[in-house]
Amino acid sequence: MSLTVYRKAHFNAAHRLYKEGWTDDKNKQVFGKCSNPNYHGHNYELEVGVTGDVDPETGFLIDLKILKDVIYKEVEIPFDHKNLNLEVPAFKNLNPTVENIAIEIYNRMSKSLDSRFAITVKLYETPRNFVVYTG
Amino acid sequence: MSLTVYRKAHFNAAHRLYKEGWTDDKNKQVFGKCSNPNYHGHNYELEVGVTGDVDPETGFLIDLKILKDVIYKEVEIPFDHKNLNLEVPAFKNLNPTVENIAIEIYNRMSKSLDSRFAITVKLYETPRNFVVYTG
Amino acid sequence: MSLTVYRKAHFNAAHRLYKEGWTDDKNKQVFGKCSNPNYHGHNYELEVGVTGDVDPETGFLIDLKILKDVIYKEVEIPFDHKNLNLEVPAFKNLNPTVENIAIEIYNRMSKSLDSRFAITVKLYETPRNFVVYTG
Amino acid sequence: MSLTVYRKAHFNAAHRLYKEGWTDDKNKQVFGKCSNPNYHGHNYELEVGVTGDVDPETGFLIDLKILKDVIYKEVEIPFDHKNLNLEVPAFKNLNPTVENIAIEIYNRMSKSLDSRFAITVKLYETPRNFVVYTG
Amino acid sequence: MSLTVYRKAHFNAAHRLYKEGWTDDKNKQVFGKCSNPNYHGHNYELEVGVTGDVDPETGFLIDLKILKDVIYKEVEIPFDHKNLNLEVPAFKNLNPTVENIAIEIYNRMSKSLDSRFAITVKLYETPRNFVVYTG
Amino acid sequence: MSLTVYRKAHFNAAHRLYKEGWTDDKNKQVFGKCSNPNYHGHNYELEVGVTGDVDPETGFLIDLKILKDVIYKEVEIPFDHKNLNLEVPAFKNLNPTVENIAIEIYNRMSKSLDSRFAITVKLYETPRNFVVYTG
Repeated sequence: MSLTVYRKAHFNAAHRLYKEGWTDDKNKQVFGKCSNPNYHGHNYELEVGVTGDVDPETGFLIDLKILKDVIYKEVEIPFDHKNLNLEVPAFKNLNPTVENIAIEIYNRMSKSLDSRFAITVKLYETPRNFVVYTG
Repeated sequence: MSLTVYRKAHFNAAHRLYKEGWTDDKNKQVFGKCSNPNYHGHNYELEVGVTGDVDPETGFLIDLKILKDVIYKEVEIPFDHKNLNLEVPAFKNLNPTVENIAIEIYNRMSKSLDSRFAITVKLYETPRNFVVYTG
Repeated sequence: MSLTVYRKAHFNAAHRLYKEGWTDDKNKQVFGKCSNPNYHGHNYELEVGVTGDVDPETGFLIDLKILKDVIYKEVEIPFDHKNLNLEVPAFKNLNPTVENIAIEIYNRMSKSLDSRFAITVKLYETPRNFVVYTG
Repeated sequence: MSLTVYRKAHFNAAHRLYKEGWTDDKNKQVFGKCSNPNYHGHNYELEVGVTGDVDPETGFLIDLKILKDVIYKEVEIPFDHKNLNLEVPAFKNLNPTVENIAIEIYNRMSKSLDSRFAITVKLYETPRNFVVYTG
Repeated sequence: MSLTVYRKAHFNAAHRLYKEGWTDDKNKQVFGKCSNPNYHGHNYELEVGVTGDVDPETGFLIDLKILKDVIYKEVEIPFDHKNLNLEVPAFKNLNPTVENIAIEIYNRMSKSLDSRFAITVKLYETPRNFVVYTG
Repeated sequence: MSLTVYRKAHFNAAHRLYKEGWTDDKNKQVFGKCSNPNYHGHNYELEVGVTGDVDPETGFLIDLKILKDVIYKEVEIPFDHKNLNLEVPAFKNLNPTVENIAIEIYNRMSKSLDSRFAITVKLYETPRNFVVYTG
């Protein structure tokens, strides 16, 4: 038996794909226009899923207000209207691909939510490209 | 090997979150504005998934017309344009959270569809909050 | 020359369609299942458009944060998680059809926004039914 | 640990549901208006998911440009603006139901992508009917 | 003062773009892959808008059930799961471009709805291409 | 009589809202987090509408392939994966608000399309904020 509750959120950010230690030419060759040194950006659309048991007392798996607040504190505050490469410490030495951003969000959510929950992160970089990470 | 066929449907309903036996204050404290005694409501958007084997004769896992009819009979007729607390017997003594509504829909679909199928219920309470239940 | 800035918002509410002075049978005959005395409800999705001139100093027609705040104060606070018939004074003696709700939102927005702006209200009652009102 | 990268694509095609060897009456009885001998058609919306490990060097699970190109070569070129029954060899003797089209797309993607990846195919025949196939 | 009520509907159909009297080469040159003699197809998504005055008695501009029924009779029955070139008389000698289909739908709706209403037809041929016709 | 053909496109870009000549404090006060000197970004979703007459020969108002190509040349090439402030000449001295970006796109489209067409630009900066400009 498996029930998962999902909450959507979003943040807008600038980033570039870039591997430190590689030449600009190598970065350009591997990451194409995504490695533009002046940055580009996205409206990231996020779905966080929380899997667990329904509390028979309340009928809630998790209070959605709590989930909304954790997403706000762990994702929206640190990521929204930010330059991911320059302003989010996790991406100082880690390429902010949509894969790595989803893993970072998963790690932040895991730290803040009760360990009895399994967590799913779905992250849209564009309406056409997205990832799902389940830890 | 796994193939799942999905069909979307929708219903509009009123509800309130409310735990019988609790004081109004306790209900308000736990369920916030969702416990408004005058009710509020939603456009519930539903996706029912049916997992099984494809019939090599027809190329169908299930005739979508049959799936559509079962959803109509088991969900749309009893839930659409209804007050879930007052008019759906399952919620006389069960809080109509989106979790519990999804479980009730799962149980109704299971009863009406052949037991060789696994069933998935995805239920949107709003475009931002939804659950997935797989039994 | 015409430039319009739009902002989306949403609220969830219960309502019934009901004409005071008509018998229950007459209400049922005209409004069908929408006249259910126990209410049903919707996720109303709203787009407010503001037409005017772009300020050459800022490049803004209107600061979207102001528009967001006015929608919050004039629509979300009074309508969200409410029973429109019982808790919104405008609908004490006015049938809360999607047409009348859009007109009421238009009137509230007009009162709060500078009169140099033309206003458009697009209101979805369901993803399949919606209205546009331009005053 | 599981990370899946998804890419969306689309193609427009004509088809009819039809079982060779059955009479026209039998086809009509089983497939209804979908068996119209003059064909009807759909905008198929496709999501291909690729599950695997993130390359710590690049932060990519798979270069999305490669995934886009494989979908273009294996699905869009052979299926887009085609009559599936007459112009796609796989459906010469196989009913082009949404189930069978998803399986054919899965087989084509598997052949062209590295065998270390698990593949998921989600195919919408209409915004209301879709399938997921995972091999 | 202007209020418009919209209702969405949809139909799936096959078509080809083709100008009678032109050679196959000329058709191919002008209409490209859309002129495939074996047809291709679309999920047409339709929004019909009706502009007029709100009846102060009911709060309705038009009963949406009536609008739904007229769309069903005038558009869904004759167009859904059909080959537009072969089975819709209007396109016997008229190229079924999305422009011409929208005009035909407008003409059919005008004939069936009260002449006091202004009508708008928005027709999506794909999620990326659409037209609006207002007579 | 009015028929408009629409085509969707999209581009991803970084920007900041910033008025040259103002202090950083004044910029921050007026533009808030949108004035982050390290930039943020968006997936801009664009709809270009072209109003005119349908050619009775072809049934086309405009060949959508031509419209797609003009959007590609005038918008996607110069804007996609770019820093609007630094890399698009129009925004060297003009604040790249969504209003000003829409006007710039309108001007570029007007220059490249036949003057017999009226043009509409709808530009989403986020799924919740957008503008419409009609010249």
